[in-house]
Amino acid sequence: MSADVVARLRELSELGRYDGGIDRGLATPQERAARERFAAWARASGYALSQDAVGNLFARRAGSHRDAASILVGSHLDTVKTGGAYDGAYGVAGALTALDLLEARKIATERPIEVVAWAGEEGSRFPLGCLGSAVFAGLTSVAEALALADERGTTLGAALASEDGGLLADVPMRNGGNVAGYLELHVEQGPILERSGARLGIVTAIAAQRRFRITIDGTSGHAGTVPMAGRSDPLSAAAEIVLALEKAACSADPSVVTVGRMSVEPGSANVIPRRVTFTVDMRSPHDADVDAIEAALHDAIARQESARNVRALMEALERRPATPMNPRLREAVRRAAAATGESFIDVPSGAGHDAMCIAAVAPAAMLFVPSIGGMSHVGEERTSDADLALGVEALAGAIVEADRTLGGES
Amino acid sequence: MSADVVARLRELSELGRYDGGIDRGLATPQERAARERFAAWARASGYALSQDAVGNLFARRAGSHRDAASILVGSHLDTVKTGGAYDGAYGVAGALTALDLLEARKIATERPIEVVAWAGEEGSRFPLGCLGSAVFAGLTSVAEALALADERGTTLGAALASEDGGLLADVPMRNGGNVAGYLELHVEQGPILERSGARLGIVTAIAAQRRFRITIDGTSGHAGTVPMAGRSDPLSAAAEIVLALEKAACSADPSVVTVGRMSVEPGSANVIPRRVTFTVDMRSPHDADVDAIEAALHDAIARQESARNVRALMEALERRPATPMNPRLREAVRRAAAATGESFIDVPSGAGHDAMCIAAVAPAAMLFVPSIGGMSHVGEERTSDADLALGVEALAGAIVEADRTLGGES
Repeated sequence: MSADVVARLRELSELGRYDGGIDRGLATPQERAARERFAAWARASGYALSQDAVGNLFARRAGSHRDAASILVGSHLDTVKTGGAYDGAYGVAGALTALDLLEARKIATERPIEVVAWAGEEGSRFPLGCLGSAVFAGLTSVAEALALADERGTTLGAALASEDGGLLADVPMRNGGNVAGYLELHVEQGPILERSGARLGIVTAIAAQRRFRITIDGTSGHAGTVPMAGRSDPLSAAAEIVLALEKAACSADPSVVTVGRMSVEPGSANVIPRRVTFTVDMRSPHDADVDAIEAALHDAIARQESARNVRALMEALERRPATPMNPRLREAVRRAAAATGESFIDVPSGAGHDAMCIAAVAPAAMLFVPSIGGMSHVGEERTSDADLALGVEALAGAIVEADRTLGGES
Repeated sequence: MSADVVARLRELSELGRYDGGIDRGLATPQERAARERFAAWARASGYALSQDAVGNLFARRAGSHRDAASILVGSHLDTVKTGGAYDGAYGVAGALTALDLLEARKIATERPIEVVAWAGEEGSRFPLGCLGSAVFAGLTSVAEALALADERGTTLGAALASEDGGLLADVPMRNGGNVAGYLELHVEQGPILERSGARLGIVTAIAAQRRFRITIDGTSGHAGTVPMAGRSDPLSAAAEIVLALEKAACSADPSVVTVGRMSVEPGSANVIPRRVTFTVDMRSPHDADVDAIEAALHDAIARQESARNVRALMEALERRPATPMNPRLREAVRRAAAATGESFIDVPSGAGHDAMCIAAVAPAAMLFVPSIGGMSHVGEERTSDADLALGVEALAGAIVEADRTLGGES
């Protein structure tokens, strides 16, 4: 029955499909159709549906302790504009399928299990990542979330009130909920599992992330008439900083640093640049390593300012500390992975996930399956059918293990 | 009377003026107005006007040998879109003023002296630099030049046939002409004279120039999930190449290298770049030095391809050999500079000039005056009034010296 996850992902992949991949922004008709599909599957399995004001959607299988706080299991149904079929959707369809496995095997849990499709994890339509889980965890208020506007000025509130992209009809409303623990199944989005040959990854921590915008001002001039001695070329300074950052990240494995955006002004082949602007994205499961890389950035900038007589402005765009996964839930996931008889390893998550927000209010853990070629956020992202099925099997086991682990808690 | 050059430049600077500087593209009403001004000044001094099919404009003062080939003295009246008041205009107004000095001092020359305003040196409206001088030297055919189209699809032929930007009425047409030698007075457009404290520069050579477009393809991926080890980041490769080029140029003084344009794709802060494209502009008065810098570029690219597993494409956009100035005319200019009693030095010209084209058919030499702050191709370009006057005085002397030097030739 766990083969179902492949069929379910195939169905979801039709929603928002275009030539290059899948585009399913929060509260669009395509994303609403994915929620409809989720609801239809849940109804067919007999789970109780509910939704909240920002579009988080829940399917509940009762536990033997009716009033106990739930174990939440899920991910998200929205995609980036150039998304693929697995990121998020796998964690939602996989959780429903894992619950179906327990049902088929007549395995009861003490706590209620709620499969959840968090609203707008990607932040691709409304400018806030992990929107639904942030609201659920109380990190963002409902009012704040509903006031967010997309590029055309439509608010999330208006989009969720509309017929074509809005909340589901006939699904009862809820407001928050008691959570005993959270599990999230996800594709790795990187090449570590594939390279190691392991089929399952137990996430150690969701990486700290810091993002900066650096602006370097130098002195422009005619490319032919200004001698090299005495030039204040901001692009040469930027080149030195890019390489210094790379070096700093390489010496703090598994930290990563990326300069993904750079613009050079005025941008003429025969004019020495006046200004170079670029972004720096640094991540590590260890906050101390990000501290070290940020220090290396400060250092490199200061050295360039004095060596090349350029002026640099460093703006922090984002600062997110590392989120370690809960040790007891990690162990629960590890036991379930071991029970499959397949190989598994510990991995950090370089990408952000809803688990980051839920970890603020409950123990959380994550399970990864391999991404072929490490590809992510592209139409070509893939995970083998066998690995998809294995991940669901391991998740079903992890739900049972978590239920036991969390049994003694309120 | 040589103070006139300041007044004449002030008059010209009104034509095409806008907030940021001067925009006077070839065969626009503004540039035609500058030719009208030239013609008015020439008529007032009694010089014979003529123009050719591409808009080159000549003012001739007769010599004692009526049929001898002329000495041409001039520069251009067009500007880049963000131009200033001195680049080109100074060489034209200065030549007319130098001729007036000879007239006032009743100094005759053996050869006729023709002041020339070359059409479209900047290539800013029609896509060919040194257009008028290239046609005059036979490097470009008249038909080819007239067929060039601007951004709106208007050909040079159509523009020159129009009333508002076209050829001048009442000025006789000519076709080429015999040239014994060529002198060009120009602002330096760089900081060398100012830094050295010299007030006049005897140009040794117009630099060789090579321009390339480099495209580096690497492997894109999620900024958070792809480990540093095994990344093929084309921006890191580009950074190494930028610094290798800088090093190569610094060790081949006075060569210069500039990367003025760079684009990074897809250009998202959280995505490892897939492709980086940039331009390389290399110049030197010595062809061998440009060879060495180009070799360093090949080297750096090859090293990056193998070290980072990226693929690079290198396209040559322009290759222009160095143009040494004629030794005998350089000496003539040097004698005239020395006669002013002011300090002068030898300087290379990193920028291209009409003298490059004319040097293909006649001995050519150039004289520079300082650019304040080395600024060029901006509205703020400046040369002090005293230096402007000194340059004209030196040019008047250089005309007489050149006439003597070239006296024995046909």
